[in-house]
Amino acid sequence: MENIKVVEIKEDIASRNNEQAQSIKDELKRKKVFFLNVMSSPGSGKTTLIVNLVNRLKNDYRIGVIEADIDSDVDAHTVAEKTGVKTVQIHTAGACHLTCQMANESLSALGIDGLDFVILENIGNLVCPAEFDTGASANLVILSVPEGDDKPLKYPLMFEVATAVAITKTDVLPIFDFSFENIENNLRIRNPHAPIFYTSALKDDGIDALETYLRGEIAKAIKD
Amino acid sequence: MENIKVVEIKEDIASRNNEQAQSIKDELKRKKVFFLNVMSSPGSGKTTLIVNLVNRLKNDYRIGVIEADIDSDVDAHTVAEKTGVKTVQIHTAGACHLTCQMANESLSALGIDGLDFVILENIGNLVCPAEFDTGASANLVILSVPEGDDKPLKYPLMFEVATAVAITKTDVLPIFDFSFENIENNLRIRNPHAPIFYTSALKDDGIDALETYLRGEIAKAIKD
Repeated sequence: MENIKVVEIKEDIASRNNEQAQSIKDELKRKKVFFLNVMSSPGSGKTTLIVNLVNRLKNDYRIGVIEADIDSDVDAHTVAEKTGVKTVQIHTAGACHLTCQMANESLSALGIDGLDFVILENIGNLVCPAEFDTGASANLVILSVPEGDDKPLKYPLMFEVATAVAITKTDVLPIFDFSFENIENNLRIRNPHAPIFYTSALKDDGIDALETYLRGEIAKAIKD
Repeated sequence: MENIKVVEIKEDIASRNNEQAQSIKDELKRKKVFFLNVMSSPGSGKTTLIVNLVNRLKNDYRIGVIEADIDSDVDAHTVAEKTGVKTVQIHTAGACHLTCQMANESLSALGIDGLDFVILENIGNLVCPAEFDTGASANLVILSVPEGDDKPLKYPLMFEVATAVAITKTDVLPIFDFSFENIENNLRIRNPHAPIFYTSALKDDGIDALETYLRGEIAKAIKD
């Protein structure tokens, strides 16, 4: 252990764009839309979980999906094909996150009038998207079992800004070094209250509780 | 498919710090040090692969390891305990990548005089670290099987800047939707030449070829 030095390097982080975010929140409130910002590492299963949830909810609510990627539109095609709901693909031209302004342009491109529920699949990145308030009503942070249960220790802000956390790919728990006890302990260091949902979209397992949670949040947004 | 609109949003990307990087490269050349920058998503198995490689190489080369994280020092402790080589933990205070200046401070903190091989484990992030030349001799980009074989399509720059690519966690190939054919096709769109290594550090499988490659690169750096 005596081989380790710890060196702190400071750098300015882009300032949050809270005022713009507040004006988006005001508009969403006026229009009675629940806007969910979904964030995670690349390849954690965001799209698969979104498709599953949209198909459970689309008969009861009017839903739109915004897919943000640096390049490619495979996710938007997947969502549109598998759910049939209105979908836009956003390309960030290299940017590692969506600013509030980008989120606003995305909402305009999608068109939110008449919608109850808008899902934004943010860039796959466990760091930068957490630094920018998109104006979303809630942040769903996803962590997949293969990534490991130590991630809240290493990527603090993402777990601090989470309104809810979904652990995905629980079907592969037996073959990865990941425990519910560790993830709950590590998450609670960053975030004392966010509910945790354990899910496998592949096995359609554990999604009921997350669906119930989202129905509650959408109901609150759309009620008078 | 007619439900999809594609919207391009432009934003300036931080400019690369190529001049500083060149001065690091010059110093490394003068001091005969091979400096490997290891980049990937969070949880792809960077630390496990680094520990495996260091233990294969440490009897033949003098090695130092720089572990960069936003917070926590679990990785530096793991590397120091499991390999015994000189290790420093860098905290980036929230930053999503290492700039060349941070890399330079890290090399100074580690102390490279007398070393043959320095490994930098960058922040787990498939976007931003690719935008900054750290001055490294080579970029090893890691992609784990659970992340999916479409990642070069979505995160182009990371795969463009790769000198070599290691696919990790191949032991779980049977249970994930990942094919060697797809990853090779998708990678070649971004990078025509980088060698690809298929590895499972857990099963100690496929590491020989990567070890041989690194021995060749180190040998080139340290020869007169």
